[in-house]
Amino acid sequence: MGALCNAERCDSGRMNVKANEAKSAQGADAVSILTEWGNTLNSYFRALPVRYAGAPPLILEAVQYSLMAGGKRLRPALVLECWRACAGDGEVAPAALASAAAMELVHTFSLVHDDLPAMDDDDLRRGRPTNHKVYGEATAILAGDAMVTMAFELLAADCPPGLVAALVKELAAASGPSGMIGGQVLDMDAAHPPANLDELRNLHRMKTGALLTASCRMGALAAGADGTKLASLDHFGRHLGLAFQIVDDLLDETGTAEQLGKATQKDVAKGKMTYPRLIGMEASRREAEKNLAAAIEAIHDFGATARGLRELARFVVARNV
Amino acid sequence: MGALCNAERCDSGRMNVKANEAKSAQGADAVSILTEWGNTLNSYFRALPVRYAGAPPLILEAVQYSLMAGGKRLRPALVLECWRACAGDGEVAPAALASAAAMELVHTFSLVHDDLPAMDDDDLRRGRPTNHKVYGEATAILAGDAMVTMAFELLAADCPPGLVAALVKELAAASGPSGMIGGQVLDMDAAHPPANLDELRNLHRMKTGALLTASCRMGALAAGADGTKLASLDHFGRHLGLAFQIVDDLLDETGTAEQLGKATQKDVAKGKMTYPRLIGMEASRREAEKNLAAAIEAIHDFGATARGLRELARFVVARNV
Repeated sequence: MGALCNAERCDSGRMNVKANEAKSAQGADAVSILTEWGNTLNSYFRALPVRYAGAPPLILEAVQYSLMAGGKRLRPALVLECWRACAGDGEVAPAALASAAAMELVHTFSLVHDDLPAMDDDDLRRGRPTNHKVYGEATAILAGDAMVTMAFELLAADCPPGLVAALVKELAAASGPSGMIGGQVLDMDAAHPPANLDELRNLHRMKTGALLTASCRMGALAAGADGTKLASLDHFGRHLGLAFQIVDDLLDETGTAEQLGKATQKDVAKGKMTYPRLIGMEASRREAEKNLAAAIEAIHDFGATARGLRELARFVVARNV
Repeated sequence: MGALCNAERCDSGRMNVKANEAKSAQGADAVSILTEWGNTLNSYFRALPVRYAGAPPLILEAVQYSLMAGGKRLRPALVLECWRACAGDGEVAPAALASAAAMELVHTFSLVHDDLPAMDDDDLRRGRPTNHKVYGEATAILAGDAMVTMAFELLAADCPPGLVAALVKELAAASGPSGMIGGQVLDMDAAHPPANLDELRNLHRMKTGALLTASCRMGALAAGADGTKLASLDHFGRHLGLAFQIVDDLLDETGTAEQLGKATQKDVAKGKMTYPRLIGMEASRREAEKNLAAAIEAIHDFGATARGLRELARFVVARNV
């Protein structure tokens, strides 16, 4: 069994994010933002096991293995930058940090279960063997299950009680049958792939978009934002979510396994419908740019506090990881 | 694919509960209590799919298949009777009903995942083919995942906001690495079965006891009970949880598959440690009775409002299902 992720390993994962395209002339670029929040989150995650006194060490180790595998931490960074866009500078609020951690836990759980032999059957994730390759299928299933319960527990334990209902509702709705899990079910239905752009967009909205949008909404809720700000960040999240998935489809066609830390060209091999297959590479790229512009337009009124958010949005479209 | 569970099927499952031993001379017996609350819960569950607009019908069907399979509904009945013990008679509070439903969702999710080929590899559950036998492994994994998110969503959506943090924390802690999921990890570790009564008791406390105790605590929390009542019901739940698992071990030795609706003598076949194997049948039976007495003693001060709770406790030890 592998040891708990150490700082060195996590940092080497983090280096993947250094995409030149994401650098900005404006100063704080997306890579710095992701690294900064990533470090904050890593500290939070490293302290997690002490909360689970009496838990079998194996389950905590399996959870930490996937949690500390050096992911981009895009979703938690979106939570925290949306919080910042609403709350301004200053020390990060416990509700924002717990929301960011809960979101990454749910995202990581979905990857661990998605990689299982009965699902996508992947051997490689974030450049390392998938959870079930290291710990076996049973423990990987339980580690994923544990991450979901931990996500909701963090929200309930670390947020002011007055915010918990809204945050739990947001995360649960985005993860459940009408959100991410529903999208995974649609995605697995090989007999009925999306037949047109509307159906593909709907699949993406559920499978990837729901969590990305919820990240933005939870950041706003953690800051106690008003309805107008919440609506703007919701709008931002929806466009960003779509742009993210189009770029994911493009990277599956053009990226290498080394670059992405996971197997590529699997969508095409499995006959899955993607943006490039449906409308071509060029039109897909334009569609991503169009959604990026709409996302940035949606947060126009936030001014300087949303600077980091704009950087992250540009990174999502320019990234090669 | 099977159709959604219809009333007839669920009722036939419900009939399993008619254990003569559970009948009481005092009037409302455990079977009536389980049936009454079971019907309330079934109505609640039947209305669940309308909350998930846009969800793929397949995932809702797979969730309903296991959710409406005619389980005993012991955990939700404990939630509701603990609520009644604290709140007295009257129409059931939405927080109590949501807690009961959330508890049954988490319990059912754990059964669906536990039955998977990579885990216990069971073909039969509650007298019907297991979820993955009907829907395939991938959908069964996702259906289990969906049930967890739905459980937390119900708590957040249906309970007064002031109660959500405490209820979510309770359910998440009881389900997670220090609770049920941790217990499943210990239970699967064939190389290190419990070596003595303390270790076996610890495994049971996590795998089964945590959810049963949380059922009692959530009922109390939903009623806004004070610390004394909460502590009494916590105590009741701990003893009842232990009695429940000892009886489960006994039934695995003596029950038939037809009677229990699932394969029997699997624990022994797998070399798992059980109460009867560790201390013998007679001593196990005495241990169960001792815990039943302690459970009933713990709720002595509740008087008449805890009548149903006492019936349920006696049923847990006397049941043959």
